Parts: sequence; structure tokens; C-alpha cells
Amino acid sequence: MNTVKIGLLGLGTVGAGTAETLLKQRDLIRDRSGIDLVLARAADLNLDRDFGFSIPQEILTKDAMEVLQDPDIQIIVEMIGGTGIAKTFILEAFSQGKSVVTANKALLAEHGPELITAAQDAGVELFFEASVGGGIPIIKALREGLVANPIEEIHGILNGTCNYILTRMERDKVAFDAVLKEAQDLGYAEAEPSLDIDGWDTAHKAVILGQLAYGIPVTLEDVSVSGIRDISPVDVATAAELGYRIKLLAILTRSNGSVEVGVQPALIPEDHMLANVEMSFNAVLVKGSVVGETLYYGRGAGRLPTASAVVADIVDVARNLISGATDRIPLEWSPEKAPRLLPPAERVERSYLRLLLRDRPGTLGVVARVLGESGITITALLQKEDPLHKEFVPVVILTGNARVGDVVEAMGRLSALEDVGDEIVRYRVEELGA
Amino acid sequence: MNTVKIGLLGLGTVGAGTAETLLKQRDLIRDRSGIDLVLARAADLNLDRDFGFSIPQEILTKDAMEVLQDPDIQIIVEMIGGTGIAKTFILEAFSQGKSVVTANKALLAEHGPELITAAQDAGVELFFEASVGGGIPIIKALREGLVANPIEEIHGILNGTCNYILTRMERDKVAFDAVLKEAQDLGYAEAEPSLDIDGWDTAHKAVILGQLAYGIPVTLEDVSVSGIRDISPVDVATAAELGYRIKLLAILTRSNGSVEVGVQPALIPEDHMLANVEMSFNAVLVKGSVVGETLYYGRGAGRLPTASAVVADIVDVARNLISGATDRIPLEWSPEKAPRLLPPAERVERSYLRLLLRDRPGTLGVVARVLGESGITITALLQKEDPLHKEFVPVVILTGNARVGDVVEAMGRLSALEDVGDEIVRYRVEELGA
Repeated sequence: MNTVKIGLLGLGTVGAGTAETLLKQRDLIRDRSGIDLVLARAADLNLDRDFGFSIPQEILTKDAMEVLQDPDIQIIVEMIGGTGIAKTFILEAFSQGKSVVTANKALLAEHGPELITAAQDAGVELFFEASVGGGIPIIKALREGLVANPIEEIHGILNGTCNYILTRMERDKVAFDAVLKEAQDLGYAEAEPSLDIDGWDTAHKAVILGQLAYGIPVTLEDVSVSGIRDISPVDVATAAELGYRIKLLAILTRSNGSVEVGVQPALIPEDHMLANVEMSFNAVLVKGSVVGETLYYGRGAGRLPTASAVVADIVDVARNLISGATDRIPLEWSPEKAPRLLPPAERVERSYLRLLLRDRPGTLGVVARVLGESGITITALLQKEDPLHKEFVPVVILTGNARVGDVVEAMGRLSALEDVGDEIVRYRVEELGA
Repeated sequence: MNTVKIGLLGLGTVGAGTAETLLKQRDLIRDRSGIDLVLARAADLNLDRDFGFSIPQEILTKDAMEVLQDPDIQIIVEMIGGTGIAKTFILEAFSQGKSVVTANKALLAEHGPELITAAQDAGVELFFEASVGGGIPIIKALREGLVANPIEEIHGILNGTCNYILTRMERDKVAFDAVLKEAQDLGYAEAEPSLDIDGWDTAHKAVILGQLAYGIPVTLEDVSVSGIRDISPVDVATAAELGYRIKLLAILTRSNGSVEVGVQPALIPEDHMLANVEMSFNAVLVKGSVVGETLYYGRGAGRLPTASAVVADIVDVARNLISGATDRIPLEWSPEKAPRLLPPAERVERSYLRLLLRDRPGTLGVVARVLGESGITITALLQKEDPLHKEFVPVVILTGNARVGDVVEAMGRLSALEDVGDEIVRYRVEELGA
């Protein structure tokens, strides 16, 4: 029997779930892979707590270096998180000739290319399936299952907290603040929710997907990010009335040699599979030039779902170690063929616009004229009687495809008008393969 | 640059699509994998036709043995189909020390274990991603992405023709025969449609999934198969009224040491992701003990989508050849731990029953009593006024969980009653994770 020894750093939620899965599924994995995965050491600063399962005391330590320098250990699993000590430990693992499995999306988004180069220089591997989409094997699908496909588009629902909030807002017609408060009380959302609801967690994942899909060193600075904090019940209800649902999406597209990587709330058709991803589930829609539209769905977070992906990575690395494969799947694709990154203003997309218009004859005509002067067509318009707004009435406009820079510029000219309210809300509209 | 030479047998729809993808995506695959895949030879008996793209004349031959015995070729792609000469050629490839990629589900369903043993004995590989779900990387997900998961359940929509027919029946309220005729005229369905609509194509795929998910040598004889030929517009409409859609599903479940592998039409909740898989798309819902519910969606057939999966397999085999990996992912799991296969009568499931009852007082009471005597509970009942049936009226019953053998036996007792019509329709009801 081939044996591979594993060292685990960090016994937080996902770390403990990984330890539990390695121990509980050891026989199954041995039957399936022919490899006996042994959890040899596990380090955490706080060992005096209930991990939720029985972990052998003798493998526990408070000293991560003990694990990193154990000559019998071939794979290090980094479950500490953050961009500080986690990076130091990963580089130390490489220098010890050990491969690393991590779920650390923030670290990969900030230092991915550096870590990949370090792993290659050391002749070891770096796997990170769990960093995007939790338990969904989306990294494997991109790197292996769709290897023959130029990736045209990716649309991902990658943050369970945001999707939970948006689902509840639509289903139960509750306001953002109320749902967030409730989610925090239930432990679904962090006390400091900015990483989730302002789109940064999704942006980390978009950076990783962008590097994999297009082989270019995307950085966080390249991603235009907006979150869901300002989405009002009016927008959710109006979108529904027009046949759309609002989802926070990581959007990656490629056309004419330019690549877009962004995170933003978008209206998507309510009968599309992606619109039916509800509550805290995640999904990634990938359109490849050869395969067409494919979608991958599952739990994007949580102790065991994430552990499922971490352990799959461990098995992959162990298989390479045992079968003698080295650098079986290169992480770096020819960066010299990199397409340019498209600035947000240059994107061409449909828009949802919500304006407040003074309730007097001709105002709508002025709005239509301003949009028309910028070459922006109106494909749908919704004005409702609203007893609460005496002087200004809310109007929603869906536009045809237009350069975002032109739309934003037109929004500026509109809001300067005396008959138009200062605040104009804009969201993207995605037809998704229509 | 590492080079791997490919020999292709069969230039039908998927074979030609594979050749086209290998030629058109050669640069991309080289960038991503570091391997230059060279389509060295391609054999077909009929070379005098338009393949839809430019294929170099000098690689074409009518003699498959020329390809099989070419010492430079390391991977044979079998795209002939059927269980005859395709099997001979695959075994010949193994004996020549060549690995094989195939999409041949019929062959794998009938001779899978024999072929796997032959590949192992020869020290070569057999890959078959395209045999289930076309372009969807579901085999890879099961063998690698979910390797840490005992597989609890699989529900698959695996035949595009059936799903197209059922979608059209529901959307447009058309009868089965009319949609089938139209699908045949449009080329979506075969002139001899039995393989699709009677469930056998789905059964081939269920056998392959069963072998992978449970590590046991499932055979076609183990699969209880029913198709969609007898589904009436009444059933589709009534299911919709009760909040369900009817889909032809491959269903694999495991519980208490028993495994079920079946193909049957089933009612599934209309708000579930799987119910929203429409037209000719395929999807596979996999429930793993660790990861929970995951779903994989995409085109289950077609020239290029299927080629996407075939070429992904070719890259996988080539990566193993170049990196020196041998038997990296064993195809055979310990069969001695095989659970027993559950006979259909022993399954416990909910049922949809449609009966014709004589329109006179007390009949419904008799039906309820007969079901009750067999311990079968009624969870929903729908009786509608129907001007067309004067003497008998249609009644639909949803039952609670009950042993299928008991339900079938009760159906026999019911249809023997003077007040109940002879024909009682039964479909399975699946709550899918409720």
C-alpha cells in the first residue's frame, strides 16, 4: 500500500472539517485511489476546544514549524487563511520540498503568481480547488474538463451570504438591512460583513478564475467591484416585474482580444438556470467555444463542503506523488499571449436605470432625448403611480447595448437636469446566452 | 516541446468534431498543457464526404489497422460506436501498448469491466468522459472532484431527445407522438427512436455511473428501465398542477448496504434546479456525504460539445504519458466491498397514480381502503370534472413512501375492481433533497 503523510496547518472551521474528512473517509479514499492518506500532524494555536469529532491527541501541536519541517510529511494543507503568516508557511513548505493545498482565496488573489512561481521553482505543486465555489469542482473543470475550450464567458454566483440576502429580498420582499441583520443573528453573515456584501470576496475568486481562464496575471486592482449594499426592494421588485432576478455576479468575458473581469449586481433572466440558484448555494456558468454553456452548482462554503474540495486536491497531489508525475498540469499559461484588460468604461452592456423624474409633462421626452444623443436605445420603460412621491416619480429604463462610459456620462447629464433626481441607480443586464 | 501522436478511428459526427477540435485548438492546448497533440492518422471507411472543416488528406486512411499498428501513435480515439468492431479495435490498441479514449456508452455498459481489466493488464489507460453527459465533465467530477465522498444519490437527465420531448409536452401542451414526429423531422430524434425514448441510452449511462459511484460491476440486466413513450399530456398537466415536472431520470441511490440503479420517468419539484433543465440539455445531480448536493449541466450530445470531453480525455492521457504517471487513477475499486443491488420491487418511494374510477358514490372510499390495507398513505388527491368521461372519471393520487412491490400489488387489486379502470398509470415521485 502506498502511503502519503499529510500535515495540516489551522484547525478552524474548514481545517477541522478537512481533518474529519481525512480520518472518516480514509478507507473509501484508499479503496478508490490505492493510496493511504495519513493525517500525520495538525497544528493550531488553540487546541483546547471541541473540534466536533475525535482527533488523536498525539498528532496535535501548537508549533506549525514542527509540521512544516517533519521530513515524513509530503503535503501541507494550509487552512490558516489571511495574507500574513499563511504565505510565510506556504513558502516554507515549498522550500522543504513539500506540495501545498490551500483554500486561501485572499492570498491567491493577492500573491497567486508569486506563489505559483515559487512552487514551480521548488518543483512542487500548489492546489486550490476550495478557493472558488467551495465544494464545487470548478477549478478542475476549468483546468482539465474544459482544457480544449477557449473560455468565452464566466458568470459566477460565488458568495453565499450575498445570494442568501438577495434570495430573501426577492422571496419575502424584505429590505437589505433587515435581511443582513437577520443573517448576522443566525451566523450566516459576519459581524463585519463588508468582505462579502461589498463584493471583495467575490472579487478574490474572480481574480483566480481570470488567471485560470485567460492565463493572464489578473490582480485585484484590475477588477471593477460593486456590491449589493445599495440594492433596494424597489429594484428587486421591478426586476421581477420585467422578468429578471438580481444576482451578485463575478463576470468574466473575452472578446476582440480584450478581457473583462468584474464583480457587480446584474439582472439575469428569471428562467435561466443561474437565476434559480437560491439561498447560500453557489454556481458557475462557463461558456466555452467548443462545449457551449456548462454550469456547476453546489455549496460554496461550509465546513464539510469545502473540506470535500480540499481533500480532492490532497488526493490529486498524492496521486502525482505516487505515480511519479511531476508538473502534470502546469499552472502558468503563456502570459505573452495575454489579451488586454478592458477598462469598465469601455464595456458594452445593457443597463437597468432607475431615476426619479419630476411629475410634469415632457420630462420623459427629455430623458429619452438625452439617452438618444448618446446613442443609447430604450428597450423597456416602467413608470408606476406612486402615492408616496408627490413631486418626483420613479421610472425604470432598460437600455440596449451601449458603452458603459457613454451611459455613465449620460447619467451625469441627466442628474444635472432640474427635472431629474440627483441619484440615478444603474445595474447591468445580462441576457446569458440569448 | 513534448509531442503526443493521436490516431482517430471513425469520422462520423463526434469523430469529425474531435478531429476539428484537435486541429483548431492545438495552439491553445499546447499553451495550457505544454504538450503538442498531433492528429497523426484518422481512419474511416467513407472518406468521400465533406467533414465540415479542412482535414489534411495525407493523414486519412480507410484502414483502421494502419492506425492501430502505427508505432508512433500513443493514443487511439475510438469514435466508431457500437459493440462490434469497436471492441476489437480497442483490444488491439491495448495489445499494441496504446491507451484509448472513447465515447462508446453502449460498449462500456456491456463490456466495461472486461475492457478495464484488459487495459490494466496491458498497462495502458481507458478514458470515457464523453460517454455520459456529452460535454459535461461528470466522470471527472465523480472520479476526482468528489473522490472524498461516499455517493448517496445520483439523479441524471442524460438523454437530450427525451428531455426535449418532455419540455415541449409541458410548455406547449402537445402529445408525445406529435412532438416525437416533429423532433424526427428536425433531426433531433432518430427514425428508430427506441434507444432514446424507451430509456436504453440513459440505462447505458446509468450503468457507467453506477460502476464509478459504487465501485461495483453493474450490468444492463441490473437496471430497471422504463421510458417516456406512454406519458400522456394529462400526466404532464396534472404534475404541473401539483407543482412537479416529469423528467426521464437515471436514478442511483445507496442506503443500508443496498444500491439501486434505475431509469424511469419521475415527478420532481418544479422549483428544483433539475426541473429547470430544459430542451436538449443534460444535467447530473450528485449528492455526496461530505459535499452535499452538487449539479453539473451542459450539452449532453452534439458534434462539438462531445468533442470537448473527448479532447479533455486525450489531454489527460497525454499528461500522464508525458509526466510519467502510470495508472494514476485506478478504474477499479474494491469490488469485494460491493453492496447488493436492490430489486425494483424492494425500493421505497413515493408514487403518482392515475386511475379511472366509475363515477358513483363510495368508489373513492374503496380505493383509499385498498391502498390503506397495504399501508400506503395518500398525500394528495386530484379529481377533476371531465366532460369526456361519462362513466369513468380520472383521479390522480400521490402516495407517501411505500415499497414499490406493495404499490404494484395494490394496483393489481385495484384494477381488478369493477369500479376501477383496467389501466393504472404509476410514476415515481422524487422530492430531491427535501
